[in-house]
Amino acid sequence: LHSQNTRKLETFIKKIRPFDRALLFERLSNIVWKKRITEALDNSGKAELLSHLHPEDQVLAISFIERSVLGSVLDEMQNDDLARMLDHLQNDQAETLVKVMSPEEADIVQKILSYPEESAGRLMTNRVVWINPEMTVTEAVQKLRQYSKIFETIHYLYVVNDKHQIEGVVSYRDLLLAEQDDLIKRIMSDNVMSVKSYIDQEEVARLIEQYDLIAMPVVDDNEKLIGLITVDDVIDVLIQEATEDIERLSGSGKEITFKTNAFTAFARRLPWLVLLLFIGLVSGSIISGFEETLASVVALAFFMPMIAGMTGNTGTQSLAVVVRGLTTNRIDKLTVTKLLIRELLVGIMIGATCGVLIAAIGYFWQGSITIGLIVGLSLLTTLIIGTLAGTIIPLILHRFKIDPAIASGPLITTLNDILSLLIYFGIATALLTRFPI
Amino acid sequence: LHSQNTRKLETFIKKIRPFDRALLFERLSNIVWKKRITEALDNSGKAELLSHLHPEDQVLAISFIERSVLGSVLDEMQNDDLARMLDHLQNDQAETLVKVMSPEEADIVQKILSYPEESAGRLMTNRVVWINPEMTVTEAVQKLRQYSKIFETIHYLYVVNDKHQIEGVVSYRDLLLAEQDDLIKRIMSDNVMSVKSYIDQEEVARLIEQYDLIAMPVVDDNEKLIGLITVDDVIDVLIQEATEDIERLSGSGKEITFKTNAFTAFARRLPWLVLLLFIGLVSGSIISGFEETLASVVALAFFMPMIAGMTGNTGTQSLAVVVRGLTTNRIDKLTVTKLLIRELLVGIMIGATCGVLIAAIGYFWQGSITIGLIVGLSLLTTLIIGTLAGTIIPLILHRFKIDPAIASGPLITTLNDILSLLIYFGIATALLTRFPI
Repeated sequence: LHSQNTRKLETFIKKIRPFDRALLFERLSNIVWKKRITEALDNSGKAELLSHLHPEDQVLAISFIERSVLGSVLDEMQNDDLARMLDHLQNDQAETLVKVMSPEEADIVQKILSYPEESAGRLMTNRVVWINPEMTVTEAVQKLRQYSKIFETIHYLYVVNDKHQIEGVVSYRDLLLAEQDDLIKRIMSDNVMSVKSYIDQEEVARLIEQYDLIAMPVVDDNEKLIGLITVDDVIDVLIQEATEDIERLSGSGKEITFKTNAFTAFARRLPWLVLLLFIGLVSGSIISGFEETLASVVALAFFMPMIAGMTGNTGTQSLAVVVRGLTTNRIDKLTVTKLLIRELLVGIMIGATCGVLIAAIGYFWQGSITIGLIVGLSLLTTLIIGTLAGTIIPLILHRFKIDPAIASGPLITTLNDILSLLIYFGIATALLTRFPI
Repeated sequence: LHSQNTRKLETFIKKIRPFDRALLFERLSNIVWKKRITEALDNSGKAELLSHLHPEDQVLAISFIERSVLGSVLDEMQNDDLARMLDHLQNDQAETLVKVMSPEEADIVQKILSYPEESAGRLMTNRVVWINPEMTVTEAVQKLRQYSKIFETIHYLYVVNDKHQIEGVVSYRDLLLAEQDDLIKRIMSDNVMSVKSYIDQEEVARLIEQYDLIAMPVVDDNEKLIGLITVDDVIDVLIQEATEDIERLSGSGKEITFKTNAFTAFARRLPWLVLLLFIGLVSGSIISGFEETLASVVALAFFMPMIAGMTGNTGTQSLAVVVRGLTTNRIDKLTVTKLLIRELLVGIMIGATCGVLIAAIGYFWQGSITIGLIVGLSLLTTLIIGTLAGTIIPLILHRFKIDPAIASGPLITTLNDILSLLIYFGIATALLTRFPI
């Protein structure tokens, strides 16, 4: 009975898609079944499983693979997936794996890991088929057939000269539609876009998105073809970059997913919160500086959360527009000037509308024209400043290539808090000395 | 000289890629040059230009196209791009365009517009080549050749039975590697994933991402093949969805880009801010309810911004994790339970650390154990509640399929503001009656 179950599992496992196998592996709580899933697969199945698993589960799956076949499994993996896996492992674990790989594979992986993080070099696979311009269509198809096992998901053949520089590209479709004895150089397209290995992965993603490409060849400084980035890798990059933007805006620290354990999440979130706690105390000391004003008109405290909150919110709104805009637009002087003027106008319109509204409310609630004036004028001023701060700060950080994580939502909110309190109590003190209640 | 310039422009325009042409069109401030760019292109070039332009510029470009060729240009457009363009036009403009299209094209576009917004039906192109299983490779390639002008960017041929239901798929690569007289049914893969036309575009994007696909066929309720979604459309969807998440988190309202004009941006941002203004007044009235406590110890006001701010921030951090997690994870009971337990633990750890810290600071700054106790206990409580609110509220909204825009960052921040003030002044009033300063 037991071996019958195992056989059923094996049949099932082989029938489903690699992504679903990885999902099943991760979802099963029973470690024995995880082991059986791994063992049911052949070497290339094992390689695909490893490519689709999250780092923690990769370690587990590796432990289920016999030492004698581990080298072959690793050699079957796409080398960008392999490099990514090694990058996440502890040093000693990674070294053990490098030892069982074939020397060529180990060299390639070391090479990939030598490229800067989040660069094109890290993302590319070196499994790219090249042909030369003097081949005929038949010869090109022969070469493709020869390498077809290894290069499964690629839709183009790149044409290189004897210096291995890209001269052109033919798609499988071009090959199908051509005559058997056509020369490659006659049917190839010579308008090929490529990127250098050190280019940021976000830039590559943007190019692939804008030009609707399926793949982007990677070249070295001598324009030699060294690898290929495919659209599925780019999709992962886009998701990762969007997640980073969101983490930035919410100050939630790096990489907290549904799978992160509580202590790690705590450790990643805490530094920000402690920093913000101290910045919050700055707000406190500003209020304490205006203690007299506040003690004379306690009602001023009633409007504090609203004014600070509104200023923070309008700043976050502007910030979101800018952070998202930075990922999809090239930034030049004209764009920045236009953006600043627009946000200034938006700030004035929002400030005027909300200012008049709250002045009226303040007057009727507290029965004092002075209080109505104080809150109205304050909100007008703080909303304009909040909008501009949310726009200018991320632009300046971007300009000086400072890690934009610093421009995160909570920081802008807290800065706007401090500014808004200074303005509010400043205006209140000035008006109350002239028109005391 | 003038005509020479025009000729140079024409040559240049024809050489660059469609995306760059659209960018140039949008960047040029001189309307005469925009007109020349449009006129320099042939019908299919004009169609591609329209596909790549933003809505405002589409209207302008359409005005440059002669009425006599407009119909042919529109017929050349991919019908998903065409539907998207009509969707953004004013009703009378759209009707004018529908009149000049060929009746078949107009029918197709009307059909696409009848699918729900953001569904697979809206995203698909109906330009899909099908073949049948009894064809030979040679016959399939002949059919491909016949339609190759129209179907430029597709990498698969779908195999359908006589009811037009999908039986399998062959890639161009399969065709290249097969023998000329192989039957399609022998070389096709029969494991084809497809989606129904009413499926949400985000679901389609997730499938394409997870299974590393290049295209996804769309079928109707009778499993008949009606269209195809390609990976480049999916990339646009992923970017759009990430942008929506960010807008949600920052409450910046719908669709504000660098190109939105000031008044539109103002109108889109205002409703949220006015709502938040009134919610902020609720905070105010809570404080006014504790006026006596506050008047007796004005120093309590010093810690208000810090406590409200920290609670808001920790809530936003949790919210970001959940909102982003919802787009990449399937939500089941186990996931939710695990997540809630983790966030509770994180809240307790963060609350305890920050609570002890602020209690010590409060004691040394204000020289009062009571104040230290009040702020410490309050922060512990509010941080735990803030973390849970940031987790539970979006999950509940997701469960009841309520528009998650309601769970946006500013709302959670403001709710946490109100909760934190109630807790803070509640604890303060209770402790001050027992241990007066």
